[in-house]
Amino acid sequence: MLPFARVTIIGLGLIGSSIARAVRQHMPTVRVTGHDADPDVRARAEALGFLDDVADTAGASVIDADLVILCVPVGAMGAAAAAIAADLPHDAIVSDVGGSKASVIEALRTALPQATIVPGHPVAGTEHSGPEAGFASLFHGRWCILTPTDDAPEAAVVRLRAFWEALGANVEIMDPRHHDLVLAITSHVPHLIAYTIVGTASDLEEVTRSEVIKYSAGGFRDFTRIAASDPTMWRDVFLNNREAVLEILQRFSEDLTALQRAIRWGDGDTLFDLFSRTRAIRRGIIEQGQDDSRPDFGRAHE
Amino acid sequence: MLPFARVTIIGLGLIGSSIARAVRQHMPTVRVTGHDADPDVRARAEALGFLDDVADTAGASVIDADLVILCVPVGAMGAAAAAIAADLPHDAIVSDVGGSKASVIEALRTALPQATIVPGHPVAGTEHSGPEAGFASLFHGRWCILTPTDDAPEAAVVRLRAFWEALGANVEIMDPRHHDLVLAITSHVPHLIAYTIVGTASDLEEVTRSEVIKYSAGGFRDFTRIAASDPTMWRDVFLNNREAVLEILQRFSEDLTALQRAIRWGDGDTLFDLFSRTRAIRRGIIEQGQDDSRPDFGRAHE
Repeated sequence: MLPFARVTIIGLGLIGSSIARAVRQHMPTVRVTGHDADPDVRARAEALGFLDDVADTAGASVIDADLVILCVPVGAMGAAAAAIAADLPHDAIVSDVGGSKASVIEALRTALPQATIVPGHPVAGTEHSGPEAGFASLFHGRWCILTPTDDAPEAAVVRLRAFWEALGANVEIMDPRHHDLVLAITSHVPHLIAYTIVGTASDLEEVTRSEVIKYSAGGFRDFTRIAASDPTMWRDVFLNNREAVLEILQRFSEDLTALQRAIRWGDGDTLFDLFSRTRAIRRGIIEQGQDDSRPDFGRAHE
Repeated sequence: MLPFARVTIIGLGLIGSSIARAVRQHMPTVRVTGHDADPDVRARAEALGFLDDVADTAGASVIDADLVILCVPVGAMGAAAAAIAADLPHDAIVSDVGGSKASVIEALRTALPQATIVPGHPVAGTEHSGPEAGFASLFHGRWCILTPTDDAPEAAVVRLRAFWEALGANVEIMDPRHHDLVLAITSHVPHLIAYTIVGTASDLEEVTRSEVIKYSAGGFRDFTRIAASDPTMWRDVFLNNREAVLEILQRFSEDLTALQRAIRWGDGDTLFDLFSRTRAIRRGIIEQGQDDSRPDFGRAHE
């Protein structure tokens, strides 16, 4: 018994197109339609053929949906929800994939006061963007967090959980505010730091861009992958999860200052203690299947 | 014509054992001997069989060497050099693989005032340590930086360059001080930031370790790989490249504070501008073969 028969994807980038591909692979009888505000993206999605139908308007794409997933940057969620409001079937469930939840819930609730809303966030992705970048196995073994508000019908949450599990994901239910704090540390601040260090490197007068590139295998190149992620998506995440990001950033800065002081004063024990402690988390991530266990992420070494 | 006939590796961890394996693969007629101060590492190296001989003392290992490469943490370079001083053949070249160069040059010069010293630094590695972690292709396509001082004979530099090129590396000659600044940005500060954020995450009271691990695919897990690197090696790097690391850290902190302010005041343009700019460096790294071009470093997605 499939949780949904007609799924609509609004926003056909990396995540939206991956969901569509995954539905086709795991639930081939489900009809998947979609829409993107950008006509060029619509044309590319049409050509790639991962949807049963690409609609020219958001309204037309949802007309017979029983699940609508908004896959747009979190700052565009309100507008995307407003664009489907008039045509949304009254029994459809609306979800999303936004990386911050409290602000998205507010935006969706405002645009769709009558709808059944179950917000979601699949914690998965790559540094590539656009409909060409998606692939069906993106959610395999990854976690999808649902953050239903108290008024969400239990049955709707159960169906959405079954949907994500059918795509290969693990599902967790979480309070939206707690989600925003957890993701600030596991995703948002790491991205901000990566963007920052790549910017710092670009701006150094004494070190050329060619040198930064040549010697990036010393560690820097890892940060450039994350710092190649979609700029609009990430701008919106920071503007919409401000409070939690600033809280984690403040703690990070204090910790970094303490290490800076240890370096200045030659306090090797403080450095060694931290550097030993951090290995345990890596082991936990490998043991729980959340990263490739091969050295160097399994990067090709000829 | 091989640049060296008898190579000695002092320190049989990831880098030392990779050099030994690479020499065996690319220059099978070269005799490679080695020593490690830790008897357990010597026994494991012996069992792994990547050396022609594992000597019980540093002195015995260099007795007929024409190239000696010190592959120990930079804080241990002086002691490692002193341990071979009495037995080093007068025509042997001494090199190293340390991640900071100015302090290492001073330590080697003090311990071996008469020797021909050509310091080096292969910019390559993984997060794994020990003789089991090494592999012959580690240096393929990576850069090895040589930082000879003015008194180094040109012929010695030419031979060491030929040696590294035979292992598949590209070679660059650089001033030691400039090396230390370049590596502070491409390697040292990225490692420090990674260690810091993993520490910050471990210390959060409101977010459990289990949550950090589960949702690490949001970006955090990338940092945990680097933060699993060898603690002794990295403590020594920071203590020995203090000046350059503090300089780059100061710039990084200023840049991060500017972004923090942009988030606090809702200045999306500043965020978007940086996030767009940083993609170019990633492209350069891919184009120049310094990272895997596949999304997500080529991580396995089932």
